[in-house]
Amino acid sequence: MKTIKVNLKDRTYSIYIGNSILSDTNLFERYLTSKQILIVTNEKVAPLYLSIIEKHVGELDYETYILPDGESFKSLEYFNNVISKLIEKKFSRTCILIALGGGVVGDLTGFAAACYQRGVKFIQIPTTLLAQVDSSVGGKTAVNHTSGKNMIGAFYQPSAVFSDTSVLSTLPEREFSAGLAEVIKYGIIKDGKFFDWLEENLSSLVMRDEKSLSYVIERSCINKAEVVAEDEKEIGYRAILNLGHTFGHAIETALSYKKWLHGEAVGCGMLMAADLSRRLGIFEQSDLDRIKSLLIKANLPVKIHKDVQFEKIYENMKIDKKSKEGILHLVLLKNIGEAFLTSEYSDELLKETIESFL
Amino acid sequence: MKTIKVNLKDRTYSIYIGNSILSDTNLFERYLTSKQILIVTNEKVAPLYLSIIEKHVGELDYETYILPDGESFKSLEYFNNVISKLIEKKFSRTCILIALGGGVVGDLTGFAAACYQRGVKFIQIPTTLLAQVDSSVGGKTAVNHTSGKNMIGAFYQPSAVFSDTSVLSTLPEREFSAGLAEVIKYGIIKDGKFFDWLEENLSSLVMRDEKSLSYVIERSCINKAEVVAEDEKEIGYRAILNLGHTFGHAIETALSYKKWLHGEAVGCGMLMAADLSRRLGIFEQSDLDRIKSLLIKANLPVKIHKDVQFEKIYENMKIDKKSKEGILHLVLLKNIGEAFLTSEYSDELLKETIESFL
Repeated sequence: MKTIKVNLKDRTYSIYIGNSILSDTNLFERYLTSKQILIVTNEKVAPLYLSIIEKHVGELDYETYILPDGESFKSLEYFNNVISKLIEKKFSRTCILIALGGGVVGDLTGFAAACYQRGVKFIQIPTTLLAQVDSSVGGKTAVNHTSGKNMIGAFYQPSAVFSDTSVLSTLPEREFSAGLAEVIKYGIIKDGKFFDWLEENLSSLVMRDEKSLSYVIERSCINKAEVVAEDEKEIGYRAILNLGHTFGHAIETALSYKKWLHGEAVGCGMLMAADLSRRLGIFEQSDLDRIKSLLIKANLPVKIHKDVQFEKIYENMKIDKKSKEGILHLVLLKNIGEAFLTSEYSDELLKETIESFL
Repeated sequence: MKTIKVNLKDRTYSIYIGNSILSDTNLFERYLTSKQILIVTNEKVAPLYLSIIEKHVGELDYETYILPDGESFKSLEYFNNVISKLIEKKFSRTCILIALGGGVVGDLTGFAAACYQRGVKFIQIPTTLLAQVDSSVGGKTAVNHTSGKNMIGAFYQPSAVFSDTSVLSTLPEREFSAGLAEVIKYGIIKDGKFFDWLEENLSSLVMRDEKSLSYVIERSCINKAEVVAEDEKEIGYRAILNLGHTFGHAIETALSYKKWLHGEAVGCGMLMAADLSRRLGIFEQSDLDRIKSLLIKANLPVKIHKDVQFEKIYENMKIDKKSKEGILHLVLLKNIGEAFLTSEYSDELLKETIESFL
């Protein structure tokens, strides 16, 4: 088992990564310091892993809340359902929530923990690669508003994260690839050596080799933890984690969040950011090619989905929430391993980039 | 104008207290550092003070959201309405919310600011005595759940608080007295000298003498700020601010939050806490008498409302959210100026106290 510390002063917590750690009794005993436990999961994950967790809480006053599966349930309505459950069971401020699932479960449960009686503890047990390498680090919790993704949320850190690599064996192939997009992102934005390693080892990773998986989750979490420790609330530097996300969100919105997974949109979006950087003359063609071939190896798209038109992408980018008082800032690249946030790019070149990906 | 600093590390902010400071252009200019401003107020306050605030934001991209008046609108539904307004107007993470009103407006607006895009700035302009001396210090924001008060919220500090004493002139008498209950509380829990001062000066205060008001708001905010600085998230010490609140909430719940104002219930509740302390032999009868006569001078009730039965109070106390895993902790008194949190009291004496107030 590997342990990564996310250094955030009095909000510091540990991420535990390992094979079958969901069976580690000591680990659960150390963190389940309350008698009142609510496990939040969804209908897809529950049949697979709920019983393993229930073994650890059998003696306690535990409850479960099972969400339907899907992004559309990451809403204020289902958030309120979780809160209602806590109140109904008379859970006090010392209760602990366990988020067992992917990003939707983690984001919603984390936000419920942030708000219930102004904050209770929660433990994250991410069951997708994307959640293990991304949403488990940094404390971004949220639900969607009918008019915008993640519009209602909080920065709220978990007490601990348990990332069991063995649960990834049941993950569908497309979801696995979507997780790889964020893994590749860490290489591109700040860890060139990790990018090199990925180029060498992607084939074993795609075969879900246990050792490779464990290494990749560790490196990803360390990279993200470093960024978050420097800028917890995204005042500046943390924005580099959004590489590919402004392009990606624009594609997702144009597709009404159907057809493509978030990671697929981000994968394509990162390549678009690299392409724009190249057009601006600050990034090499050869590095652009390296990114493209790594994405292809990871089974990620390198062209915009065919159902999306130019105007939609362009318009959606303009109303992205990362625009500061109307000016759209983008994360662009200088090298593989070096990203930066800027509003200095030509609108013409941005249009060229979008067109070349249609 | 007086300035009080609430020391909370990177969340430190100032409270400005003075006559007619709502007309102070410099003050507003210093804090309105965004072009996107949303003023949240209610239908009772808007006709009185909205236009004064609008003068300061006239040049900016400002919007207003006017709540209906009443505690029942401090709900997730109206919280969502505020968020919808922000999204509809395409307000970014750099926008600023202004809460213009009493506790309901402040709590709901603060919570919306805490959650919109995971946190934007807000300025509090409390228009009741209760909000000026209590909810403007300490960052407790929340909305009510259908099954419990303040069950959904966050600790989230404002950028600044503007407390204009002149707005108190329009406050109805009962609401003014309700605010005095919290003022008297600070004297009882930690500032015996302030309690002495209140005994001397309550008559001029009730006449809403400008100088007395300003002094009382200042001393109250300083006292509360000291407690909050020591224990922002109510892990321990901050609980003393709940003197009278467990009794008070039990009465309010029994009355379905009708007939009595919160401050009235707290006033009676403080006397009950003092009475229980006296029965336990840790508090003097003469000090109990002093509290009682000060409450009477402030036009606050010293008996439980006649519509409430013993069983209701007793049962409601047992399910109070301040109970820790089933054990009800109460704030009790050693002296005027010295309170502490304890679970060591006899249930028999608690019952005697309740009965003696019926």
